[in-house]
Amino acid sequence: MGKKRRLLRQMADKAGLPPGSLHYVGEHASQTLATLIEYGPGEQDLRETCFSSLEQGKGFNPTYPTLWLNVHGLGNIDLLQEVGRRFGLHPLTLEDILNTTQRTKVEAYEHYLFIVAKLGRFDAAQGCVVNEQIAIVLGRGWVLTFQEQASGTFSQIREHLRKGAGQVRKLGADYLVYALLDKIVDRYFGVLEALGEQVEALEDEVSEGAHIGVLKRIHALRREMLYLRRALWPMREVLNSLQRDDADYFGAETQIYLRDVYDHAVHLIEAQEMLRDLVGGLTDFYMSNQGNRLNREMRMLTVIATIFMPLTFIVGVYGMNFDHMPELHWRYGYYLVWALMGAIGVGMGWFFWRRRWL
Amino acid sequence: MGKKRRLLRQMADKAGLPPGSLHYVGEHASQTLATLIEYGPGEQDLRETCFSSLEQGKGFNPTYPTLWLNVHGLGNIDLLQEVGRRFGLHPLTLEDILNTTQRTKVEAYEHYLFIVAKLGRFDAAQGCVVNEQIAIVLGRGWVLTFQEQASGTFSQIREHLRKGAGQVRKLGADYLVYALLDKIVDRYFGVLEALGEQVEALEDEVSEGAHIGVLKRIHALRREMLYLRRALWPMREVLNSLQRDDADYFGAETQIYLRDVYDHAVHLIEAQEMLRDLVGGLTDFYMSNQGNRLNREMRMLTVIATIFMPLTFIVGVYGMNFDHMPELHWRYGYYLVWALMGAIGVGMGWFFWRRRWL
Amino acid sequence: MGKKRRLLRQMADKAGLPPGSLHYVGEHASQTLATLIEYGPGEQDLRETCFSSLEQGKGFNPTYPTLWLNVHGLGNIDLLQEVGRRFGLHPLTLEDILNTTQRTKVEAYEHYLFIVAKLGRFDAAQGCVVNEQIAIVLGRGWVLTFQEQASGTFSQIREHLRKGAGQVRKLGADYLVYALLDKIVDRYFGVLEALGEQVEALEDEVSEGAHIGVLKRIHALRREMLYLRRALWPMREVLNSLQRDDADYFGAETQIYLRDVYDHAVHLIEAQEMLRDLVGGLTDFYMSNQGNRLNREMRMLTVIATIFMPLTFIVGVYGMNFDHMPELHWRYGYYLVWALMGAIGVGMGWFFWRRRWL
Amino acid sequence: MGKKRRLLRQMADKAGLPPGSLHYVGEHASQTLATLIEYGPGEQDLRETCFSSLEQGKGFNPTYPTLWLNVHGLGNIDLLQEVGRRFGLHPLTLEDILNTTQRTKVEAYEHYLFIVAKLGRFDAAQGCVVNEQIAIVLGRGWVLTFQEQASGTFSQIREHLRKGAGQVRKLGADYLVYALLDKIVDRYFGVLEALGEQVEALEDEVSEGAHIGVLKRIHALRREMLYLRRALWPMREVLNSLQRDDADYFGAETQIYLRDVYDHAVHLIEAQEMLRDLVGGLTDFYMSNQGNRLNREMRMLTVIATIFMPLTFIVGVYGMNFDHMPELHWRYGYYLVWALMGAIGVGMGWFFWRRRWL
Amino acid sequence: MGKKRRLLRQMADKAGLPPGSLHYVGEHASQTLATLIEYGPGEQDLRETCFSSLEQGKGFNPTYPTLWLNVHGLGNIDLLQEVGRRFGLHPLTLEDILNTTQRTKVEAYEHYLFIVAKLGRFDAAQGCVVNEQIAIVLGRGWVLTFQEQASGTFSQIREHLRKGAGQVRKLGADYLVYALLDKIVDRYFGVLEALGEQVEALEDEVSEGAHIGVLKRIHALRREMLYLRRALWPMREVLNSLQRDDADYFGAETQIYLRDVYDHAVHLIEAQEMLRDLVGGLTDFYMSNQGNRLNREMRMLTVIATIFMPLTFIVGVYGMNFDHMPELHWRYGYYLVWALMGAIGVGMGWFFWRRRWL
Repeated sequence: MGKKRRLLRQMADKAGLPPGSLHYVGEHASQTLATLIEYGPGEQDLRETCFSSLEQGKGFNPTYPTLWLNVHGLGNIDLLQEVGRRFGLHPLTLEDILNTTQRTKVEAYEHYLFIVAKLGRFDAAQGCVVNEQIAIVLGRGWVLTFQEQASGTFSQIREHLRKGAGQVRKLGADYLVYALLDKIVDRYFGVLEALGEQVEALEDEVSEGAHIGVLKRIHALRREMLYLRRALWPMREVLNSLQRDDADYFGAETQIYLRDVYDHAVHLIEAQEMLRDLVGGLTDFYMSNQGNRLNREMRMLTVIATIFMPLTFIVGVYGMNFDHMPELHWRYGYYLVWALMGAIGVGMGWFFWRRRWL
Repeated sequence: MGKKRRLLRQMADKAGLPPGSLHYVGEHASQTLATLIEYGPGEQDLRETCFSSLEQGKGFNPTYPTLWLNVHGLGNIDLLQEVGRRFGLHPLTLEDILNTTQRTKVEAYEHYLFIVAKLGRFDAAQGCVVNEQIAIVLGRGWVLTFQEQASGTFSQIREHLRKGAGQVRKLGADYLVYALLDKIVDRYFGVLEALGEQVEALEDEVSEGAHIGVLKRIHALRREMLYLRRALWPMREVLNSLQRDDADYFGAETQIYLRDVYDHAVHLIEAQEMLRDLVGGLTDFYMSNQGNRLNREMRMLTVIATIFMPLTFIVGVYGMNFDHMPELHWRYGYYLVWALMGAIGVGMGWFFWRRRWL
Repeated sequence: MGKKRRLLRQMADKAGLPPGSLHYVGEHASQTLATLIEYGPGEQDLRETCFSSLEQGKGFNPTYPTLWLNVHGLGNIDLLQEVGRRFGLHPLTLEDILNTTQRTKVEAYEHYLFIVAKLGRFDAAQGCVVNEQIAIVLGRGWVLTFQEQASGTFSQIREHLRKGAGQVRKLGADYLVYALLDKIVDRYFGVLEALGEQVEALEDEVSEGAHIGVLKRIHALRREMLYLRRALWPMREVLNSLQRDDADYFGAETQIYLRDVYDHAVHLIEAQEMLRDLVGGLTDFYMSNQGNRLNREMRMLTVIATIFMPLTFIVGVYGMNFDHMPELHWRYGYYLVWALMGAIGVGMGWFFWRRRWL
Repeated sequence: MGKKRRLLRQMADKAGLPPGSLHYVGEHASQTLATLIEYGPGEQDLRETCFSSLEQGKGFNPTYPTLWLNVHGLGNIDLLQEVGRRFGLHPLTLEDILNTTQRTKVEAYEHYLFIVAKLGRFDAAQGCVVNEQIAIVLGRGWVLTFQEQASGTFSQIREHLRKGAGQVRKLGADYLVYALLDKIVDRYFGVLEALGEQVEALEDEVSEGAHIGVLKRIHALRREMLYLRRALWPMREVLNSLQRDDADYFGAETQIYLRDVYDHAVHLIEAQEMLRDLVGGLTDFYMSNQGNRLNREMRMLTVIATIFMPLTFIVGVYGMNFDHMPELHWRYGYYLVWALMGAIGVGMGWFFWRRRWL
Repeated sequence: MGKKRRLLRQMADKAGLPPGSLHYVGEHASQTLATLIEYGPGEQDLRETCFSSLEQGKGFNPTYPTLWLNVHGLGNIDLLQEVGRRFGLHPLTLEDILNTTQRTKVEAYEHYLFIVAKLGRFDAAQGCVVNEQIAIVLGRGWVLTFQEQASGTFSQIREHLRKGAGQVRKLGADYLVYALLDKIVDRYFGVLEALGEQVEALEDEVSEGAHIGVLKRIHALRREMLYLRRALWPMREVLNSLQRDDADYFGAETQIYLRDVYDHAVHLIEAQEMLRDLVGGLTDFYMSNQGNRLNREMRMLTVIATIFMPLTFIVGVYGMNFDHMPELHWRYGYYLVWALMGAIGVGMGWFFWRRRWL
């Protein structure tokens, strides 16, 4: 039930909105928390600020070359509008950040790139894929990220920044966006693994015998594949267009890394397509198994009926009450009938054995 | 019945028409009503006129930079010809406006763009998708819209114009066309939601058990998907070609908004494709369920036959009338037979229990 | 039978021909009749000549700017060769005109365009789509058309020419070709309508119950769809390439009209694809219905067997001839057995009612 | 069996070969026979030489503008290497000529075009499509052709050359290659016709009733379609790239003829695709027929069981041996039972007639 | 089981890795062994060195124009890093060499091409396709290859180098890469042959009769096809992009050879697609056979039931104990009943013979 609601939720409430109006449509209207990290290549060039309201965040003036503002929770619309004003975001960008039913996409605005991505997670309890929206804005020297709720996906990047580990401090805002996208894409490997395990389990169950519950689960898995597919394909498109079109935001150095994430995305899609084919084959497998089972049962019924119907007929014959039935008065009549029935039984058995039914 | 007629209606009457001849082919030959709105960016720059015949509308001279003429009801061909003459419409344009079986398309004429779109609506009573035609003509500073009947879709835009709310007064004719297309595209979210609910309901019914009526409804739903698909795909094409080719009619500012509508259309198509896949999977699900049911019934029949056929044979044996049947005269013969039959019954039960049939 | 021969006929006799040799392969070797119409924009600028042999047609010298030569019946090869000589047709063009198994195509020769199209018709008696070939040659100021037999498709255009109605007299040879193509394309709307009615009728029949004859008709309809598809898709291609590539034969004015025919062709293809999907869904629908019917019959058999097998067993028990069967001598034994059997019957009924089998 | 071996043969022996090594992999290691025809446009400009060994062919010096060397049988590797040396063929070209498992392709080398094609033939005895390889090398003024064995396909062209008929003597080496390709493509019409006849025959058989042998033949026909498809599609590609890319080898005059062969290839592919769809539909048709047959048999079983089970129960009742069974002593008890059973029979009949089972 | 683990293994462990970190994810952490071959066109221009640790390989200074360093076993990360430093490999390249779950791809870095390919092998024992990763780096005058374990695939090339046979010594590093790719591609012919034999065996088994084990094997074969497909398609892409884009690494001479490998890859893909279609058709064939078998069993059951049910009814009738049953006292009643039953049996037989059931 909960899974299906997802599809509908993604459509609802969308229709009535006038363009450019701000309204949060998600379910996680938790408290808004903004984290500002400014940094440069130098070892001490890092400043980290947290604020949860407009007043707290008022005076942020960038002192280091690169600035990353991450916002958790999208309930505080005033704060978002203030952020939009400072960084010159288009009204449609703000609208898309709040409307968390956007599809994965990249859009070039006058002085920034706007990327919407989905953070995939396999909810084992409900057995379904959950996609949370994350919006990334990349300007010249600054990056904004907006999430519905804290997911811990980027904590590793934050650690790297604090420690100055890797190239993340040296290579600027474009490398930071690469690192974010890399984390987002890599999370789907876990989702695929979880689905792959389900396919594996179902294959074993179908191959052992067909229960009615298996069918429902194959159907559900197929639906999850559709959701996953819908998340992965546009991701590839986005990474492809980042590589191709907008070379001015990403330096040559970062382009090589972007190609690597793109490659991971292609890898994911291929694995997903393969899983999809496996699930599709599973349905065929299940139905053939079903057919086999039907045949087996039918064969058993046929064998039983073919053996006992003539025998029952014979005993019926000698149960008739005619005055003149010579066999009834034969001394060994009864034993002859048993012999006849034995012969018929053996003959049938030989017949079925020859046709490989037994 | 009524649904199928739709397909035929869309084809009929088309063949015999000579090119350029004007003839309204729709069903809603209601009274023609034209509404003329002229407006500019200034607060008072708005004039609204209504007329329903040629005489009333004679003297309209535009005084403000942007002019929007909306026509409801296409029965008054004289009025349409007059409009065509004033705005220099090509005979084929007028023909297409009247022939409401056009497919969604955009065509560039010498000095205007001609857009045909479909206004989708889910008719819950008939359980089918209804597409009404709307024609939009975009010239330099003027917009014409033609509908078969009043639908209230654009009343919100008219309100915005009157109040001067949003950017609609400032950005001119191209933004107005964007706003119209946005409304048209967003209406399909409701259609998809209605269909999605039907898919959800059918999934529950199939999963509970297979009734014959479900099959008919799956078949009908599949047909509605085909109609919806046929409406959505060309819409995306139209929005795409508006973005790409005809940049001279749409300003850079409006292009960003057009991209947003295009995005909505892609979103709609993805959701529709997904629903289609779900409906397709539903048929498989239904057929597997059917197969399961057949197996279950077959198993029951086999169990019954396998248990009772040998027993009936045995009681038949001792119903024979041979003179010499020693068992009949045994003191406990009758009880021994019951014991034998009991053993057979228990044996069969154990056999079926081991094969998990019981 | 007759339908299948079609496919073979289209292939046979093709293989042995040396390139450029003239040989008519169609079935309608009726008398050749050529109609020559010369016309100009002026009211009296029209001359019409008919001739059926080389001698009659000898002295045709064009006096008006546009010339249209229509030939019915392709048996008179000498006449065709004479025509080919006068208008400088390539040997391959003449070969293609006579070989009426060509596919729809357009080919640019040095000083003319050569278009092969198919004139669709639904043969209600045989229940199949008939495609007759029509060849159109468009030069500078002249148009040649070649048909296997008179079909009356162009009589309306001839009338327009005689009356000087519409733009046909004014716009020259390219507009004439447009008018011809428009007629050819529009004839397929009738074909689609006829097929659509068949789909509709079959849907009703399947939904009411599955007869064996329905299956044959679905299979036949599917085959007709394949023929129709094969006729329509290349038509779209032809119209598309006329619009794009060969702009020098078609004036800007006529291009707008060509776009309109192209649009009709796309409309036809979409409707045909939709019909095809509907027919495809019909097979599934039929097979599911079949499965339902099987289930229903199986259920009935199971109910009957499950009720009567135990009862027959019981009456068999008391038909046994053992000397010592106490029940047989009970005063109310017979009635008790009836009571027992009644209880079993009621119990079974309750069981099946609870499982919704009755 | 023989058919399947084909697929494997096409793969085997390929793997171990070092690039550029010469080794004939086909089955027809018949004697090598080379035919050299030199010709020009003049009536006497033709010289024909035959040789089967290196020594015989030593002194061939071209005296006329166009030279055609045809080689039958690929066993004589020395001769081939000599030919390769004289005409400057690349080692890979020679390797591909000998390896007769190449796919249809065209490759441009520095000073010649290398075309590999398949000569299709329907082997009626084995019921399978046989593809023999033919290699064509087109240089400036010379053509080389290599076949596994003499097939008589080109004898007509040779006749034309000898008689000087048609344009073949006038138009040079490119026209000769066109004539060869035209022959190769046209041979497939016969193959398609043979397969089409099989489809037709199978359709009739399925429609009359389902035998088990039909299924095997449908499966085999489907496989032949795959082989045919694999031969035709690359042929179209080759003809397309000859038209487009390598205009320098083919004169403008010959290009028009090439377009004609290309058209034939497209025609073949469309007919093949259609046959494939028909065969696909045939499987569905067969399976539905099977389902119908199952239903019919099930219905018969159900009718029999439903009528006789209650009757057998009733006669069982009055076969019981209770001391007190009043009906047994009624004067007309026996006749009443017959009446009862008659009523049940008529009632069942009416029931089945109303449900249209009889 | 083992087969399915493959898919999961390819995904696992991938997610947590920070970009650029070196970690070997394969299963074959055997000892690292590096073989260095330097060579030039001259007969003596060859030096071969082997080393398995950093110290041994320290002083390699190229003396001949071309250098080939092959590394078996990827456990020694220090050695790999040293190699990376010397040849200026990008950190992502090293990461991809160690992460043996990469997909087949080619990537252009600043001064080298990086190719990842899969070495296919059919594991007959497990009945599955095994793909081992091989990484190739092509610089100006040098080639690096990295394999998980020694496979002997390149020993023939090494032999050619040592003997100076073929063109491999003359044509430099690009020809060496061609030779490596040729070996890699050609190995798949063996894989396809093995799978083709399985398809052949399964076809025979299905055609003889349907066992339950066949179904499992068809399903497994289908899965192997998916794995094979996933290996072959990107290979074609890689070869295509090598031909097109990066002409500066491959000389004109080598390009001709590359085209040949590309052709082999296309050949492989076509054969694989064909096998896939055959396996797909096999499932249909199996299911139709299953249906046939069901029909045959059902028919037998129906024949048995239809013959014996009326007979059993008749003998039941004369087993009734009514006081007044005149037939019982007829002299030839018993024989008449046998005659009646014989007549019914013959009638049924004739009925079934006429319906071709016997």
